[in-house]
Amino acid sequence: MKLIIDTDPGQDDAIAILLALGSPEIELLGITTVAGNVPLALTSRNARMICELAGRPDIPVFAGADHPLVHTLVTAEHVHGKTGLDGPDLPEPTMPLQDQHAVDFIIETLRAEPEHSITLAPIGPLTNIALALRKAPDIAPRIKEIVLMGGAYFEVGNITPAAEFNIYVDPEAAHIVFTSGVPLVVLPLDVTHKALVTPERNAAFRALGTKVGQAVAQMTEFYERYDKDKYGSAGAPLHDPCTIAWMLDPALFSGRHINVEIECVSPLTRGMTVADWWGVTDRAPNTLFIRDIDADGFFALLTDRLARL
Amino acid sequence: MKLIIDTDPGQDDAIAILLALGSPEIELLGITTVAGNVPLALTSRNARMICELAGRPDIPVFAGADHPLVHTLVTAEHVHGKTGLDGPDLPEPTMPLQDQHAVDFIIETLRAEPEHSITLAPIGPLTNIALALRKAPDIAPRIKEIVLMGGAYFEVGNITPAAEFNIYVDPEAAHIVFTSGVPLVVLPLDVTHKALVTPERNAAFRALGTKVGQAVAQMTEFYERYDKDKYGSAGAPLHDPCTIAWMLDPALFSGRHINVEIECVSPLTRGMTVADWWGVTDRAPNTLFIRDIDADGFFALLTDRLARL
Amino acid sequence: MKLIIDTDPGQDDAIAILLALGSPEIELLGITTVAGNVPLALTSRNARMICELAGRPDIPVFAGADHPLVHTLVTAEHVHGKTGLDGPDLPEPTMPLQDQHAVDFIIETLRAEPEHSITLAPIGPLTNIALALRKAPDIAPRIKEIVLMGGAYFEVGNITPAAEFNIYVDPEAAHIVFTSGVPLVVLPLDVTHKALVTPERNAAFRALGTKVGQAVAQMTEFYERYDKDKYGSAGAPLHDPCTIAWMLDPALFSGRHINVEIECVSPLTRGMTVADWWGVTDRAPNTLFIRDIDADGFFALLTDRLARL
Amino acid sequence: MKLIIDTDPGQDDAIAILLALGSPEIELLGITTVAGNVPLALTSRNARMICELAGRPDIPVFAGADHPLVHTLVTAEHVHGKTGLDGPDLPEPTMPLQDQHAVDFIIETLRAEPEHSITLAPIGPLTNIALALRKAPDIAPRIKEIVLMGGAYFEVGNITPAAEFNIYVDPEAAHIVFTSGVPLVVLPLDVTHKALVTPERNAAFRALGTKVGQAVAQMTEFYERYDKDKYGSAGAPLHDPCTIAWMLDPALFSGRHINVEIECVSPLTRGMTVADWWGVTDRAPNTLFIRDIDADGFFALLTDRLARL
Ligand SMILES: [Ca+2]
Ligand SMILES: [Ca+2]
Ligand SMILES: [Ca+2]
Ligand SMILES: [Ca+2]
Repeated sequence: MKLIIDTDPGQDDAIAILLALGSPEIELLGITTVAGNVPLALTSRNARMICELAGRPDIPVFAGADHPLVHTLVTAEHVHGKTGLDGPDLPEPTMPLQDQHAVDFIIETLRAEPEHSITLAPIGPLTNIALALRKAPDIAPRIKEIVLMGGAYFEVGNITPAAEFNIYVDPEAAHIVFTSGVPLVVLPLDVTHKALVTPERNAAFRALGTKVGQAVAQMTEFYERYDKDKYGSAGAPLHDPCTIAWMLDPALFSGRHINVEIECVSPLTRGMTVADWWGVTDRAPNTLFIRDIDADGFFALLTDRLARL
Repeated sequence: MKLIIDTDPGQDDAIAILLALGSPEIELLGITTVAGNVPLALTSRNARMICELAGRPDIPVFAGADHPLVHTLVTAEHVHGKTGLDGPDLPEPTMPLQDQHAVDFIIETLRAEPEHSITLAPIGPLTNIALALRKAPDIAPRIKEIVLMGGAYFEVGNITPAAEFNIYVDPEAAHIVFTSGVPLVVLPLDVTHKALVTPERNAAFRALGTKVGQAVAQMTEFYERYDKDKYGSAGAPLHDPCTIAWMLDPALFSGRHINVEIECVSPLTRGMTVADWWGVTDRAPNTLFIRDIDADGFFALLTDRLARL
Repeated sequence: MKLIIDTDPGQDDAIAILLALGSPEIELLGITTVAGNVPLALTSRNARMICELAGRPDIPVFAGADHPLVHTLVTAEHVHGKTGLDGPDLPEPTMPLQDQHAVDFIIETLRAEPEHSITLAPIGPLTNIALALRKAPDIAPRIKEIVLMGGAYFEVGNITPAAEFNIYVDPEAAHIVFTSGVPLVVLPLDVTHKALVTPERNAAFRALGTKVGQAVAQMTEFYERYDKDKYGSAGAPLHDPCTIAWMLDPALFSGRHINVEIECVSPLTRGMTVADWWGVTDRAPNTLFIRDIDADGFFALLTDRLARL
Repeated sequence: MKLIIDTDPGQDDAIAILLALGSPEIELLGITTVAGNVPLALTSRNARMICELAGRPDIPVFAGADHPLVHTLVTAEHVHGKTGLDGPDLPEPTMPLQDQHAVDFIIETLRAEPEHSITLAPIGPLTNIALALRKAPDIAPRIKEIVLMGGAYFEVGNITPAAEFNIYVDPEAAHIVFTSGVPLVVLPLDVTHKALVTPERNAAFRALGTKVGQAVAQMTEFYERYDKDKYGSAGAPLHDPCTIAWMLDPALFSGRHINVEIECVSPLTRGMTVADWWGVTDRAPNTLFIRDIDADGFFALLTDRLARL
């Protein structure tokens, strides 16, 4: 399947990219970057570092928006470290950033490829996707589906008591995506908090004996401290790789087709994914909202694919 | 302990009142009624019916607000039935409603009794409590504590995807209560959804062989259909009795001292209790927010006390 | 006509009270006070000082709300001075404040007097009126009309770029009043900014040669500096007396029957009176919104009535 | 001076374009179109019809956004007629629409031309300008200034009681522009409602004896009915041409350097330009907000320039 990953790496973004690159089912057409976990210059650097780590400097990387649509940028160095990719000691990338703007790459690729052939996997704030949809509304019906990491219902929030980071950073962009009519699959905290890198699972990464396996182990070791301290988790949650895993094997996951609206108004609840899990409104479903995961199956798949890099 | 129950019965309100009346530790000074599950005329009738069921027509019942502070009244006949107390076949009450307004009864009682001697248990929308606090701000430091049923965090909402009924009906009143400085104990859906009347527990009510036991069994049988249909629950959740049980035996419960803010702005999230369970803000704690319950202990206590009526 | 003035004196409130006391058409049943220009203790003191200045210590004065319904109190000492009544050197009042709460006085008076016999003139934040309407909804159809000073349309705002002070201080209370169904006459900044105390008009007050005339002249001299500095006005605007003058001689004024909604949501526009002057919505009229005044006629009336005190 | 007009014609947009094309001081680099008064297909058609009317099919016209950033499109056929350009009987345009997107034309032109050499005149909703600023933040410091028609303070609103049409249609875009740091000149309803086409002024257009003069007369005759009916105006207000006139002769206008914030939150006030005309906040000035115009001078200038076409 043809895929564009829109990303703000982030250690979990990095692992998502590696999972895609290690999976023969996926043809990664390009990576687009956005400001999020760290500013755009760093996410654009980090994306290229990961491509080079995977031995894939041929993957084109396009920089996108350095600022959310309406509100001021919020970043998450407290989770991901100063570079966004703290943990392993990776070399600065030598592959170039593409000249084209991320938004234009998304638009032109969707127009050039057959209808419904391309999946978008946004695993950062949704600014680039929203800009593309507003600049070129003709692309909406051409997208196969958008499989995104973002939001929460029963887990409610992480960056605020009511909002998950990706949606909180650019709720208006999320509103544009969630009202676009494009088929949506959402991997919220409800499921990603169940994809935890336990010591055993991390040992399996390390045991791959590859540069990739070692780097992945070091990345999760760096950022697991945040969730361990806060939630008492057993390890780092692999938020973003859940999107790629869902594409590879949706049977690992379960959820509901429900309506999700994005809260853009109140300072207290901004960025909340108001998910009608219980069907108490008459709002039409617009999202496949995932809640459960076969975590062992997920980690088996991930480790297997990382082993190919 | 001296108690005023502020209520919108409601079958679970009724059981909360019965639990209080069956508990010798509690001196119930009066019951104040508010519009909520059903309009004020019905909640005022229902409160008296329950006093008479318990053989306590001496308990003074005062009618309060028939309308939320700012927004239009929303009711919940879809849960509680047309009368609010559907299920048992109870006689119309003959005891009178007091002439005094509920708000004035609350104010005058708090002024007449020693400081910190009176607990308020609001188990409906918080309109009366808010009106009392605004009309007579001197009462706030006299209240021992407010132990209320309302809100949700991990359960998020029932009447909307983001809000629990009691808070949703009058979020501005809730805002007044949560910013009043009065010590607060909150029994949210997170805990009350764990206090389920299973068939065994209902059989225990019925086995009391009393009018009270039979009526309680019939009430829970009536309104359990709602939660069974919606959530696939094992039985009716006893929301409101959790407040009285907490007063009688707080060791049955556990929670956290956290900040809770009430969302009043956005139509999408209005009435949400934005609970900083994970401590991600620097907002000062204002609430003991309960999350867990020893459900068997709770039902043992409840059944024991109902047996005394 | 029977009148209750609800007030937060304020020099212009003081002149409104004096205008009412000097007018034989008006039977002033009582004065209720509210926090606004200055805190409640001062407005309650100031109201009594003005009654005594007018030789009417028999007028009962009742203290009401010391805090707006939902938001924190904002005061206006930058306009009215530290006491709220800076300017003249008046003695501390000796007449007592009534024991009864302002809200209960309003409710009981409306219930005791014939239907539609009593006019309310709120010339401060609308907290007391809103509390009365919510505590005793039966009074709404008994009120003859509410003639209030507040809001603005073409003048937009004074305390913020979008809001006039009285409405800004308690927008939720204003919302309750504007949706109450009670006939409303609103004297907004649009008209009160045309009721300016020019030097000639102030000379006429002073020329009365009475204690009242002198005090009124000193009051307007004190607070005119604010509007002169800000707007380059010719003198102090007599906001609140416009309400009493409208009752005495509505022919001095003109306006439109339109819809007015109160903005309660956005921090930027909170307290705005969104007045559909041009009829661009389909919202039903709820207000006689005054825009013009015969200023010479108004000052002639005012001076004549002050002369009687 | 080098200029890009961003527009949603609209009769007054058309006259603005004609004024620019008739003015030798202005080098019109291109016209970009946006959805507003009518949908994008019509504004793109209308812009080309006006270029051809002026004998300037060489002006490149670029279509932009067909939808506001966040909210649903609102149009104004009730003012401008079904085509947006009702009145004259003009031929369908034969000149082509450019292939490039309006947003990219704005970005590339700003990057290609010297810094501070290009003025933008947005006379419709600000969607295109906002998209350009977010896609290419490097352009903000390159813009000489943005001279826009939009908003209102003392005139408050036209499409709603609180908002002028251009800002109302896309308040989030306006927010992006007003917080961009680019020098802003705003021609609000406060000034444009003083630029009225009286019968004498319209006679002067017609007396030019040219196709342009006749078409302008017919356009104003068509859309004057709206303001005459609503406001009792003397004639059609020439909103959009005020922007071009300000560039040509700022001495015809006067205003204040003040802060203007855009209201994006409340349904009641959405799109309001909250203008701190009286300096009651401490928010820093970001706008030259025009309030007055020498209307005779303006119409003399306009008629003179139209005569050159
Ligand atoms: Ca990410
Ligand atoms: Ca209840
Ligand atoms: Ca006042
Ligand atoms: Ca226009």
